[in-house]
Amino acid sequence: MIHLIKDILTSEPKGQAIDVYGWVRTKRETKNLVFIEINDGSCFASIQATFDRDTGLDNNTEALLKKAGTGVSVKVSGNLVPSPAAGQRVELQANNIHIFGDADQEKYPLQKKRHSMEFLRDIAHLRARTNTFGAVARIRSQMAYAIHTFFQERGFQYVHTPIITGSDCEGAGEMFHVTTFDIEETVKKALKEKKDPDSFKIDYSQDFFGKQANLTVSGQLEGETYATALSRIYTFGPTFRAENSNTSRHLAEFWMVEPEMSFFTIKENMELAEEFIVYLLKWALEKCKEDLEFFDSRIKKGLIEMLKNVVNTPFTRLTYTEAIAELEKHIDRFEFKPYWGCDLQSEHERFLTEEVYKGPVIVTNYPKEIKSFYMKLNEDGKTVRAMDVLVPGLGEIIGGSEREENLDILQGRIKELGLREEDYWWYLDLRRYGTVPHSGFGLGFERLLLYVTGMGNIRDVIPFPRAPKLAEF
Amino acid sequence: MIHLIKDILTSEPKGQAIDVYGWVRTKRETKNLVFIEINDGSCFASIQATFDRDTGLDNNTEALLKKAGTGVSVKVSGNLVPSPAAGQRVELQANNIHIFGDADQEKYPLQKKRHSMEFLRDIAHLRARTNTFGAVARIRSQMAYAIHTFFQERGFQYVHTPIITGSDCEGAGEMFHVTTFDIEETVKKALKEKKDPDSFKIDYSQDFFGKQANLTVSGQLEGETYATALSRIYTFGPTFRAENSNTSRHLAEFWMVEPEMSFFTIKENMELAEEFIVYLLKWALEKCKEDLEFFDSRIKKGLIEMLKNVVNTPFTRLTYTEAIAELEKHIDRFEFKPYWGCDLQSEHERFLTEEVYKGPVIVTNYPKEIKSFYMKLNEDGKTVRAMDVLVPGLGEIIGGSEREENLDILQGRIKELGLREEDYWWYLDLRRYGTVPHSGFGLGFERLLLYVTGMGNIRDVIPFPRAPKLAEF
Repeated sequence: MIHLIKDILTSEPKGQAIDVYGWVRTKRETKNLVFIEINDGSCFASIQATFDRDTGLDNNTEALLKKAGTGVSVKVSGNLVPSPAAGQRVELQANNIHIFGDADQEKYPLQKKRHSMEFLRDIAHLRARTNTFGAVARIRSQMAYAIHTFFQERGFQYVHTPIITGSDCEGAGEMFHVTTFDIEETVKKALKEKKDPDSFKIDYSQDFFGKQANLTVSGQLEGETYATALSRIYTFGPTFRAENSNTSRHLAEFWMVEPEMSFFTIKENMELAEEFIVYLLKWALEKCKEDLEFFDSRIKKGLIEMLKNVVNTPFTRLTYTEAIAELEKHIDRFEFKPYWGCDLQSEHERFLTEEVYKGPVIVTNYPKEIKSFYMKLNEDGKTVRAMDVLVPGLGEIIGGSEREENLDILQGRIKELGLREEDYWWYLDLRRYGTVPHSGFGLGFERLLLYVTGMGNIRDVIPFPRAPKLAEF
Repeated sequence: MIHLIKDILTSEPKGQAIDVYGWVRTKRETKNLVFIEINDGSCFASIQATFDRDTGLDNNTEALLKKAGTGVSVKVSGNLVPSPAAGQRVELQANNIHIFGDADQEKYPLQKKRHSMEFLRDIAHLRARTNTFGAVARIRSQMAYAIHTFFQERGFQYVHTPIITGSDCEGAGEMFHVTTFDIEETVKKALKEKKDPDSFKIDYSQDFFGKQANLTVSGQLEGETYATALSRIYTFGPTFRAENSNTSRHLAEFWMVEPEMSFFTIKENMELAEEFIVYLLKWALEKCKEDLEFFDSRIKKGLIEMLKNVVNTPFTRLTYTEAIAELEKHIDRFEFKPYWGCDLQSEHERFLTEEVYKGPVIVTNYPKEIKSFYMKLNEDGKTVRAMDVLVPGLGEIIGGSEREENLDILQGRIKELGLREEDYWWYLDLRRYGTVPHSGFGLGFERLLLYVTGMGNIRDVIPFPRAPKLAEF
């Protein structure tokens, strides 16, 4: 039986014999004692193993202890006892050490000194062994499970929408192409056959899928097909944007959560979004306490207070028109001057949450021109039932809407925007057969993680980030 | 408050006023009564709403009832009462009906008659509204949550390994290429510039990722980087194979579960795999009872008995060498004659589980020639610590191994197989710095679903299947 250190640290120290498996974080010694901190990544804390020379350590043990530097993998056996040291409840009175694998102290990239985030990004295969990235990984795992649990408890069905899509109609951004064509061979063949450059066409019927295929930018439209069958569904999967944005806020590959609910109007949609955010942050505060304390003290001061504030403050609801009116009162404060019809900028969103309402805000009823074709048109003919959830310290964390369920209006919007109705035949079928009011929203999982951890760069909250010129590992 | 039918059906019928939201499945009437079966997909069962003409239905209600055919979306209000009818505990004494959306009875593709699986595959955007595909979707959701819960309860961290990978070293099959190049434009440009066909090269440094990128075929290698930091991890995400296999067992896009555990030898790996399969099937038997009963009666007779048998039978362990010896005793039974060194065929696997051991079997220690480079070499130098878990009625459901943790041996294997060591620099680093014994396995999620539902075609257990020439929606 191999115990995790997180379980050992919370068990009752009765002097019981136990084996500890993990990697050496630090070693220090006095004349009679050798202290080894062993970490296995199952929790933030390490366990201290104490070797006492007064009890007599044989030569072999002394030799192994000499080799037990940072990063070395070990099994240490001993007895679990209450610890006399401050800050730890238990420790291991060690009597034996086995080394699985060495870590050359000259070459191992993760020595005790602090490393820059940039350096660690280059060794993404090792960075989860550090305090920071171990904590990010555990919080990421906890938040993913919290998301599943939230929806499963509420009767939502988890749906896997397709990653490769032949449907080009999501319209949420630039797409990656997926092909089995060997591009080089295709060019060579055309050159050999001296094709005419003007009339040359790729015959996609010969490609794997018999047509052009891309990586999905959103599972929403497919999600709606299942919501109008199972009532409440959510997706949680990878999505892709081929935008050439080399920033700390963009990824080419990221994970999205997209619930979709039949019979929900924007009112129930807002209630669900608020309940969801509060649930996730509470989960983090309760189940990731040790990791959050680390982020609060080392990465972003005041993080825990900020998260608690969101949990404890009812979300203010206001319309886009009201938001613009409020912003216009403080027009001098903004680099980008707000006006009715403009997209809200990050500076506007943060001003609303941090200075005006001092808490989370849900803005609704945006001008139709700045929102997607599928959002339900209001009776004014000018605004749509969109909603953005904004939080202090970040800005937008959720975007959603009530969907247009009226066939004629939706067809009109598709036409108005110059889209091709035949691309949407199946989406329109949902309005042809038993259409229902329905709503949904999207949460960018990495944005949530930036918020919960206080990390500054989105590339540091996903194990192996994908961005322009970045696809190592 | 919008209630799900699954909650209404299990609540106490005290005559309370309640609104039911859903889609009409069937309508039938007697002189005085109109019965409407309403389904919302939250569970298999529909709720019956009974309109009693003796209580006086106004003309409007009569008109709406006339329109309430299959597929029409409704809100029906009434009182929840104990049902006098057999097979249902409660029903709705209805007094009002609202129609959200019609479903033209001439055109709606899902009329009451039975539909072929092929027909339903063509309308994958509507098929979740049928009994069969609603049940598949609910079981899929339950199994996904069971997988997360199993691992989370055991201290595993969920890791998102990358979907797009610049690493070409998984070696598990043909890969899809991911690019932002416009292939047609690339060809046209080369033609216009009259490039030399023999020396022409694509400059991938100009592609989005600055190099050739593909869709992942497995998250295992990246998963190992996190397992050797956090001890126990699992992945659960989409994986891809560009194999031109147009069969009922292959998908181009499918979901894989891949746990990876530091300090686990193949022994603990087998124990975990057995515990995992039993846990998942028990979960299905307990939480998907109604849906499984449907599959048992309509799709695969004896399904529930088969699943219970796996839950109740300890998994037999035997080596590949023992398995071959056993198979050779019955050599006349097989189309493909087994011999030491051959890959086990489906007919062999099923013979072992169904006829010899009458239960699940774990086969270990396969010849290294038929297994992957990363599997731990046994001391005999001929076999590796692979394990396949086989179940009656399906064959292989899990494949895994203890991993080669010795740097020299792993480098030797890479060389032996003609792979390029530089492609594996980061994977080898895990053996350079604090290497540990570790193990893991993979479960194809759709194969699990085929097993649990008894469905015959893998395209019917994923919402929108991807296969050669198939990327609709």
